[in-house]
Amino acid sequence: MVPAARRGRPRAEGADEKILGAALELLLERGYDRFSVDEAAATAGVAKTTLYRRWPTKDHLIVAVVARMQDEVPVRYSGDVRADLTRYLNAIVHGLDRVRRAGRPAGSGDASAGLVAEVAAAAARHADVGAAVHAMFARRNAVVLALLQEARSQGELRPDLDPEVLFDQLAGALYYRLLVTGRPLDGAYVGRLVSTALEGAAR
Amino acid sequence: MVPAARRGRPRAEGADEKILGAALELLLERGYDRFSVDEAAATAGVAKTTLYRRWPTKDHLIVAVVARMQDEVPVRYSGDVRADLTRYLNAIVHGLDRVRRAGRPAGSGDASAGLVAEVAAAAARHADVGAAVHAMFARRNAVVLALLQEARSQGELRPDLDPEVLFDQLAGALYYRLLVTGRPLDGAYVGRLVSTALEGAAR
Repeated sequence: MVPAARRGRPRAEGADEKILGAALELLLERGYDRFSVDEAAATAGVAKTTLYRRWPTKDHLIVAVVARMQDEVPVRYSGDVRADLTRYLNAIVHGLDRVRRAGRPAGSGDASAGLVAEVAAAAARHADVGAAVHAMFARRNAVVLALLQEARSQGELRPDLDPEVLFDQLAGALYYRLLVTGRPLDGAYVGRLVSTALEGAAR
Repeated sequence: MVPAARRGRPRAEGADEKILGAALELLLERGYDRFSVDEAAATAGVAKTTLYRRWPTKDHLIVAVVARMQDEVPVRYSGDVRADLTRYLNAIVHGLDRVRRAGRPAGSGDASAGLVAEVAAAAARHADVGAAVHAMFARRNAVVLALLQEARSQGELRPDLDPEVLFDQLAGALYYRLLVTGRPLDGAYVGRLVSTALEGAAR
């Protein structure tokens, strides 16, 4: 039990945890379309009003769940920025694959962007969901941007490099293939992407 | 009038044009959420059944409309690949801005990905819409990939460069900022992006 003297709202936080846990299970099983907020409340054993007070729409709840689905990828500069980026981008590919597959039959050849696209649409639909998604990516990307800054100060990257532009190119290529062109993502592609970005396209 | 001997289904094609024209007007005014397929049929003066036979869902119709919204950007290698890419990416930024704003109040500071995100979600939701979106991008990107091949054969780009990887990095960065991080897109950003991709990040 949470001691009475502890700050915050322990009971509500307990309900939040129950709701997010139940919603994650349901989302992985059903996917976006067949996910029901009322069913998530019932499974979590909380009143619908409790859930809707915290997450006013299905989009709000689903984005909160997806934010927790992302694996925390340990990011520390190893002295080899190519290896670090390759590892990190492969972890993004793995994470995107996990999120996109929510609610889809395992082992199907289906390459749909699935839930990844629904999260982007939810962020576009509601200004507050958009702000939450953008803040989540700002927090997550800050860690890899710090790694790139360190690689730059250690002389592995150009002194005038803007780490954000480099990372946009790398992560952007992955999301572009998944969300826009539908081209496949794998380790071989990640390797070519990192090489091209580091070495540059110009002769 | 279309001569009777002409091949194809001229009347149905006429209906298609009317529907797509009416749907475009409606989509620009209303945006995705408030767009109604029945209203598009009524405005076009065609039976709902005619429309639904051709486009079975709102998502199918909207993706067909958006495919026609994209400006055709003339793409010819000028001998200066940096200038060509800068021009082309600025045209993409302009086109994305036009699509994302559909149904949103003019002049609002709203940076939502809007309809761009809804198209990505529609492509993820229906396998046939996804195939149509991927084919549209394959056709559109083939032109710029040919330009990059020519720049490579003229010695402006590395002989071992994969044009697709380069273009993924460039277009990908734009879509990533719009759909994922919410960071702004403008001409200054495009300039930094092209320079970073051409020159490479490594020291």
